[in-house]
Amino acid sequence: MRTSKQYFEGLKKKSSNLYLRGEKIDRDAEELMNAANVIATTFDAAADPASEKLCTATSHLTGEKINRFTHVHQSVDDLHKKQDMTRLLVPRVGPCIGRCMGVDALNALNSVSFEADKVNKGSTEYHKNFLKWLENFQRNDLVGSCAQTDTKGLRLLRPAQQPDPDAYLHVVEKKQDGIVVRGCKLHITFASVADEILVVPTRSLTKEEGDWAVAFAIPADHEGVKQVLHPHNMRKRTQIKRGFDFGFVDSYVIFDNVFIPWERVFLCGEYQHGGICALLFALFHRHSYSGCKPAMGDLLLGLASLAADINGIPNEPHVREKLSKLIEVAELGYAAGYTASDLGKPEVYMPGRGLVPYGPGAYIPNSIYANVGRCLTGEAVFEEQQILCEVAGGIPSTFPYEQDFANPETGKLLEKYTRRSTEMPIEDQIKFWMLFSDFTNSDLSAATNYGAMHGGGSPIMEQIAIYTQYDINYRKNLVKAMAGMPITAPAKKK
Amino acid sequence: MRTSKQYFEGLKKKSSNLYLRGEKIDRDAEELMNAANVIATTFDAAADPASEKLCTATSHLTGEKINRFTHVHQSVDDLHKKQDMTRLLVPRVGPCIGRCMGVDALNALNSVSFEADKVNKGSTEYHKNFLKWLENFQRNDLVGSCAQTDTKGLRLLRPAQQPDPDAYLHVVEKKQDGIVVRGCKLHITFASVADEILVVPTRSLTKEEGDWAVAFAIPADHEGVKQVLHPHNMRKRTQIKRGFDFGFVDSYVIFDNVFIPWERVFLCGEYQHGGICALLFALFHRHSYSGCKPAMGDLLLGLASLAADINGIPNEPHVREKLSKLIEVAELGYAAGYTASDLGKPEVYMPGRGLVPYGPGAYIPNSIYANVGRCLTGEAVFEEQQILCEVAGGIPSTFPYEQDFANPETGKLLEKYTRRSTEMPIEDQIKFWMLFSDFTNSDLSAATNYGAMHGGGSPIMEQIAIYTQYDINYRKNLVKAMAGMPITAPAKKK
Amino acid sequence: MRTSKQYFEGLKKKSSNLYLRGEKIDRDAEELMNAANVIATTFDAAADPASEKLCTATSHLTGEKINRFTHVHQSVDDLHKKQDMTRLLVPRVGPCIGRCMGVDALNALNSVSFEADKVNKGSTEYHKNFLKWLENFQRNDLVGSCAQTDTKGLRLLRPAQQPDPDAYLHVVEKKQDGIVVRGCKLHITFASVADEILVVPTRSLTKEEGDWAVAFAIPADHEGVKQVLHPHNMRKRTQIKRGFDFGFVDSYVIFDNVFIPWERVFLCGEYQHGGICALLFALFHRHSYSGCKPAMGDLLLGLASLAADINGIPNEPHVREKLSKLIEVAELGYAAGYTASDLGKPEVYMPGRGLVPYGPGAYIPNSIYANVGRCLTGEAVFEEQQILCEVAGGIPSTFPYEQDFANPETGKLLEKYTRRSTEMPIEDQIKFWMLFSDFTNSDLSAATNYGAMHGGGSPIMEQIAIYTQYDINYRKNLVKAMAGMPITAPAKKK
Amino acid sequence: MRTSKQYFEGLKKKSSNLYLRGEKIDRDAEELMNAANVIATTFDAAADPASEKLCTATSHLTGEKINRFTHVHQSVDDLHKKQDMTRLLVPRVGPCIGRCMGVDALNALNSVSFEADKVNKGSTEYHKNFLKWLENFQRNDLVGSCAQTDTKGLRLLRPAQQPDPDAYLHVVEKKQDGIVVRGCKLHITFASVADEILVVPTRSLTKEEGDWAVAFAIPADHEGVKQVLHPHNMRKRTQIKRGFDFGFVDSYVIFDNVFIPWERVFLCGEYQHGGICALLFALFHRHSYSGCKPAMGDLLLGLASLAADINGIPNEPHVREKLSKLIEVAELGYAAGYTASDLGKPEVYMPGRGLVPYGPGAYIPNSIYANVGRCLTGEAVFEEQQILCEVAGGIPSTFPYEQDFANPETGKLLEKYTRRSTEMPIEDQIKFWMLFSDFTNSDLSAATNYGAMHGGGSPIMEQIAIYTQYDINYRKNLVKAMAGMPITAPAKKK
Repeated sequence: MRTSKQYFEGLKKKSSNLYLRGEKIDRDAEELMNAANVIATTFDAAADPASEKLCTATSHLTGEKINRFTHVHQSVDDLHKKQDMTRLLVPRVGPCIGRCMGVDALNALNSVSFEADKVNKGSTEYHKNFLKWLENFQRNDLVGSCAQTDTKGLRLLRPAQQPDPDAYLHVVEKKQDGIVVRGCKLHITFASVADEILVVPTRSLTKEEGDWAVAFAIPADHEGVKQVLHPHNMRKRTQIKRGFDFGFVDSYVIFDNVFIPWERVFLCGEYQHGGICALLFALFHRHSYSGCKPAMGDLLLGLASLAADINGIPNEPHVREKLSKLIEVAELGYAAGYTASDLGKPEVYMPGRGLVPYGPGAYIPNSIYANVGRCLTGEAVFEEQQILCEVAGGIPSTFPYEQDFANPETGKLLEKYTRRSTEMPIEDQIKFWMLFSDFTNSDLSAATNYGAMHGGGSPIMEQIAIYTQYDINYRKNLVKAMAGMPITAPAKKK
Repeated sequence: MRTSKQYFEGLKKKSSNLYLRGEKIDRDAEELMNAANVIATTFDAAADPASEKLCTATSHLTGEKINRFTHVHQSVDDLHKKQDMTRLLVPRVGPCIGRCMGVDALNALNSVSFEADKVNKGSTEYHKNFLKWLENFQRNDLVGSCAQTDTKGLRLLRPAQQPDPDAYLHVVEKKQDGIVVRGCKLHITFASVADEILVVPTRSLTKEEGDWAVAFAIPADHEGVKQVLHPHNMRKRTQIKRGFDFGFVDSYVIFDNVFIPWERVFLCGEYQHGGICALLFALFHRHSYSGCKPAMGDLLLGLASLAADINGIPNEPHVREKLSKLIEVAELGYAAGYTASDLGKPEVYMPGRGLVPYGPGAYIPNSIYANVGRCLTGEAVFEEQQILCEVAGGIPSTFPYEQDFANPETGKLLEKYTRRSTEMPIEDQIKFWMLFSDFTNSDLSAATNYGAMHGGGSPIMEQIAIYTQYDINYRKNLVKAMAGMPITAPAKKK
Repeated sequence: MRTSKQYFEGLKKKSSNLYLRGEKIDRDAEELMNAANVIATTFDAAADPASEKLCTATSHLTGEKINRFTHVHQSVDDLHKKQDMTRLLVPRVGPCIGRCMGVDALNALNSVSFEADKVNKGSTEYHKNFLKWLENFQRNDLVGSCAQTDTKGLRLLRPAQQPDPDAYLHVVEKKQDGIVVRGCKLHITFASVADEILVVPTRSLTKEEGDWAVAFAIPADHEGVKQVLHPHNMRKRTQIKRGFDFGFVDSYVIFDNVFIPWERVFLCGEYQHGGICALLFALFHRHSYSGCKPAMGDLLLGLASLAADINGIPNEPHVREKLSKLIEVAELGYAAGYTASDLGKPEVYMPGRGLVPYGPGAYIPNSIYANVGRCLTGEAVFEEQQILCEVAGGIPSTFPYEQDFANPETGKLLEKYTRRSTEMPIEDQIKFWMLFSDFTNSDLSAATNYGAMHGGGSPIMEQIAIYTQYDINYRKNLVKAMAGMPITAPAKKK
Repeated sequence: MRTSKQYFEGLKKKSSNLYLRGEKIDRDAEELMNAANVIATTFDAAADPASEKLCTATSHLTGEKINRFTHVHQSVDDLHKKQDMTRLLVPRVGPCIGRCMGVDALNALNSVSFEADKVNKGSTEYHKNFLKWLENFQRNDLVGSCAQTDTKGLRLLRPAQQPDPDAYLHVVEKKQDGIVVRGCKLHITFASVADEILVVPTRSLTKEEGDWAVAFAIPADHEGVKQVLHPHNMRKRTQIKRGFDFGFVDSYVIFDNVFIPWERVFLCGEYQHGGICALLFALFHRHSYSGCKPAMGDLLLGLASLAADINGIPNEPHVREKLSKLIEVAELGYAAGYTASDLGKPEVYMPGRGLVPYGPGAYIPNSIYANVGRCLTGEAVFEEQQILCEVAGGIPSTFPYEQDFANPETGKLLEKYTRRSTEMPIEDQIKFWMLFSDFTNSDLSAATNYGAMHGGGSPIMEQIAIYTQYDINYRKNLVKAMAGMPITAPAKKK
């Protein structure tokens, strides 16, 4: 396994294909450092005896010890550990640990490539190629990113109906040694500080949309790929330092006729499995959210309860009620993920067929529970922010800048007038409110809300998954039985 | 184990101490029959091979096969089975299966009587008495009810401060052979069709309130006990029959200087364990709700989705969104209970000490998860009713009476004008809307909402449990670490 | 103007066409008396000097003093008085004063019949007929009911597309002296204790749907009309009496080939005005709700605050917050109606044309404000019930029956154990909780919720009205101006 | 009246007492220009014939035409015009027009200084001094700011109980020619670009807290006053320009033993009127919110509906429902303000006495309606943001920077891949999403939310005002009458 130092060195060696504010920048640019430090934490935690057990796993390919962020889930226990690792690491760095997208995508591709080969009856070698790619990925402890969301063009038209076919990334040419693809994936978080980008479809596809059913992996600086960045960083501090400076960075990842060699292609034309691949990545990712959203809930609760302490109102009934609400959301989200892990199986939901075995035996979390959990936590984002706003009052929004505390003309006066608690040293109160502002009153916090609402699929996407996969007929039959109505189909238990 | 027939025969043999509308009634009165039929289901299910596995258990006292509703949970598996049995049986009868209160109370008393003896260092025999009582209870497959809620008098005063000390049931005399108690327990559901009533304290108690720290079991027709009833039944039907007629019945259980022999007393004076007993019954009961509220959710979903079918709007986006919301509440409630089961241990939360071993090794569900689940489902009651109202429209509120369908002057016209679906026979549509009305537009449905909101403790009680038992300090330390503030106490993992 | 006694005498004289529980009943049947007493209040209030000013008006036809419930609004002041009369009278009787549907329908028909004649260029005499009918209606101080809601059959099909054309009431034959209609109007509240029924279309109509564009007035016992009833009454009391016993009664009003003479037909075939008629009745009725829903809010607030007093918790912060929420809903609903009155004009919104003059100069409330108010109060129904449930606790659901208080074996004990306040006499506490139960735990309260949600159009109907009538383009232009985008159409002020 | 040019010149002449990021800055600093441009709009609008009628008034002191932002409301019409002026101007500049605080404070002080003199029976000349100050203020068309919010120290202690008495600004010395005050007012928006600061108390006060009952006006650069700034600006653009660049700026206004001459002191020691002054400024300011929050609603609706257009989903039912919700909040807020204006009187609510005449006859909006409106719009802030997030999707959060559109290596590709609508030119789509991001994904938008929640008093403050001023007893009596309970006090109509 790599050290964080080796990870940073790897970043520096990559070719430059990043664009920011009109300029091409290198991967050691200052604006990327916070995001890279987040990723670095995943190497440190795997090396730390205190967290090693959660953060490493044994490769089912090589039997070697690997970073859990490169692992294919082999059991219910792996699913539990994935959730708990996420909940452990996220609060150390901020709202996102950055390396889930990769492990979620590779778990999806592992199963999908296997099944696509089955359908093709030996005419393709997607799974073999994938495993070869995976072995290298695990051995070199690489950081993966997942590029799923297409630009989508006209939202009510399907990919093949778009005036611009590139609204969804697709194959424009198949060659002897590979394929050529065109399109753009957007909102691709941490892609600029990752080693590999796994590209998967974004939606279900029809028979006519085989060209859009394409999945592959490329190095993040692959020839022809351009990334246009939008970084989100905690406000730069020069005098009053934080314990950790969080940041993340989004990319428009543009594929302008990019060549992908066959050994890196894991799906190409199998439209049904394209749709399952989209769903399956989403499912693994929603399961990841059952770790990170409760972890974010831990931070929000810490922020709200410390704000209440400093404001001198920790025992006010309406404050306690609001704090309880934060706990409820976090722990219901966790419980949903826990149950999704515990009921996990090598199965996937197929429309019209229900749950069926899928893939080479790797474990997939239960879809209903992964979805209800993600839906709840997604829907709660703005209410959580409202609670923080209510408990804090206006102070995080108008708090003075660090330099004004250092200015002799204003510093002591500001210390006097920002002091609320007589028990906590004023410098800690200042540090606290400045961090609170980072989490609630900044470009970063606003972007975090948007990610927390839409990442892994907006709540409406989870509702669609829930509604279409749930055994509603069983519930209708329960009612029919009680009403004295005839029951046409046998009542099944969920 | 008894049959349902034996249960009914037992009811008939009891002395008459029930009062309804100014009259003394017997236990085979018509207004109690729906409730008794609900209880009877628990005997039938235990005898049915299809549900026997969930609905029976092996007594840890005798090794005999017993009804699970008389069992003390010996393992995580028992907790899971308790939840799943409840979810299985409830939808067959309506919102409530009626026998949980008993099993939840005996599980609480099992642990509390054990610990109280320990504190008394051999001077009491609560646990021995309890086990003797329990063996008989299990062997005769008795139905237990739990009487917890006191009338409470002035809400902001403690028991010992009340102008009327009987506002909370308490010991008024200790004798050689037993104690005399006075007070009244109210909202005691199914007490009139139960065999035994387990009486437990309703709240935490101070040193001065030892007389209120009393727990015991009595036959439901014990001398001196009066029950004043408020039955809630589905509307009586004479022509268009249901598959099952649900009803429940609440009692004011009045103890007007009632003598309890020592062998039926399981706590008497140990104020600290009185408080734990109150909390512990609530905890077991909130865990029961993780079975019945999702089961009620199953029925509500069945009602809403059939209403959408008959109204011809099952694919309207806003209908699907509402149905998804019903599923979310049900499955988040289930997941919380599932996690509470899976993390269950012979431990209890003690203020200031955290989780500590408690009782003789019997299993107790995790309190945080039992509480967040119950809180969610309690808070959702009225929103769920709103969803049903929105999907159905006004029809369940003004639907004609069954006799008007039989009247030749109006019957055919009403069939014509109540028909909405062309696919479902009109008699089924009629049956459906009449049942829908039972669940939404009746005395019964209104009372069900009140029970679903307050039963097992109102949402605010769960919030208090959550807030006081949660490791908030761990979350504060996460924030302090990120803010760069010193961490005074070591950060503990939840 | 009539007295309430004359009203009762009039009821008794009507032919019997009411069906209830399989039998034909007279209009002085006991189950109708509560509803009739509600209507009677409107006669008493008009005769009472204290309320005469609000409850009477001057007829624009005859110059005579008339009951305001028969008046056509001639000014902004009339609109204000209509709202304030409703808010004054409703809390005296319960959730509904019962006579609004008539006045709202006649106001709609007044304008629609005028405009339909204009379109027909003198070939019809709808408005003349209407005014003749109205003069009689005012002079005899009759009680009107409005029959709008059709059974609707398959919800996603239009009237003309239905497999059963009678799913919407329509003209089946035009004769020399009148028309024959068939169909059924349902949820028609107070129709069985009204003198006249005004029938109006339920939705917008296409060119092909002229037969459904029909409006007329008939006596409530008109030949061939059958009413199948569903009464909703407060629980009958024999010993502990209320100040007022509320009830209302819904009808399925069935028109089985009913002949309507031309002088009672006010629209027949003018499909565009059929749609406007539907919308216009809804608009007047939503404006009525700006009086009755705040009035219902007054009662709910009274219930909640007395419950808090008796429970001894009036100063708890979370109780105050809940009571404030009740006030907010009521007063926002009132303010919306107030503004709708104050901005009222003889204008109506026409799709594609905006607000245009409509009718003979009678005043119509502003549609946007009438709709936002009704939408708010409709959406709040279940939340308001939740607040009452939270403040009361379980007591209204399990409260003993009045006879048990009279029973010497239980009466004193129940008085002892239902007492919560030491300040209020126990008989008042008992009366209070029994009324509270009427408003929250009864068939009646459940049906009231359904009416309060769907009456005058469900919230989704108000949202459609709001969305389609609002000047969204003006708001887009504000944003375009700020964004620096070109503005195509001139920015209009709302 | 001044021109905006004269306003800017006035700013430049002021002494420097502003601190930002450790440095003293002038009033023409770039970071203040957006805020100053907002204020400048109020001069331009008064001079513009199209808006002159709303934006000017006739001084009751001099009879001269003055800017309405310097006017004392003389009638209901003035209250209506104040609301409508605010709704007109705000959408031209952004969420806030910046000059309300001044006019709201002077309206409060006008009445309070008059009443305080009455109490003092001629021993003070507060009102005479105030009118002299006001005449100058009107004549020179000055911009006022209001400094109300104190730092508050320990939240549960009263001013006189604080360990640091300066936690609330107070008089430390009374001299022959004036007073000396110490303390700090925070969150004082637009104070750095105002001409005058009006200082008022922040809460009700006891007899012992006379030193805290102090109100006065000073020039914004008054000797000894320091302002520490926190500006909030739309992101700077260099290439793709907006139509208007919004910004606002908050100050900590520090009074470190500042001398105030008596002629500028309008209250000093009258503790009861100190509390009324606090409440009255809040009331006028909440009424102002009935203009600006609906105006902000106009902008949010424009943003959401254009986003829906560009995303191609304007007719999706769930989108329409969300847009309707935005309209509902805006128009209910407007209706509440409209009603508050229309029912306005020269009266104020006095605890224990109800509404009583107050001040020299100037008009005060109705408190209940001003409060329910502000409460609604305050509570809706985060839900409105959620709606925008739901309609837009992730695009505003990751949108490329303007320079990347200009870069030849990425510009055309980004235009291709950010294009969603085929109807709107791509440069307009880009401008739109960048503005959308300003309103939802920026430091500024987050700070705007905090202001919109807490400005003029947090929702909980409005709830307290509502609860304590509402005639709850009248509602209790309505219920008592219906329950058959005796009514002790005569039922009053609200």
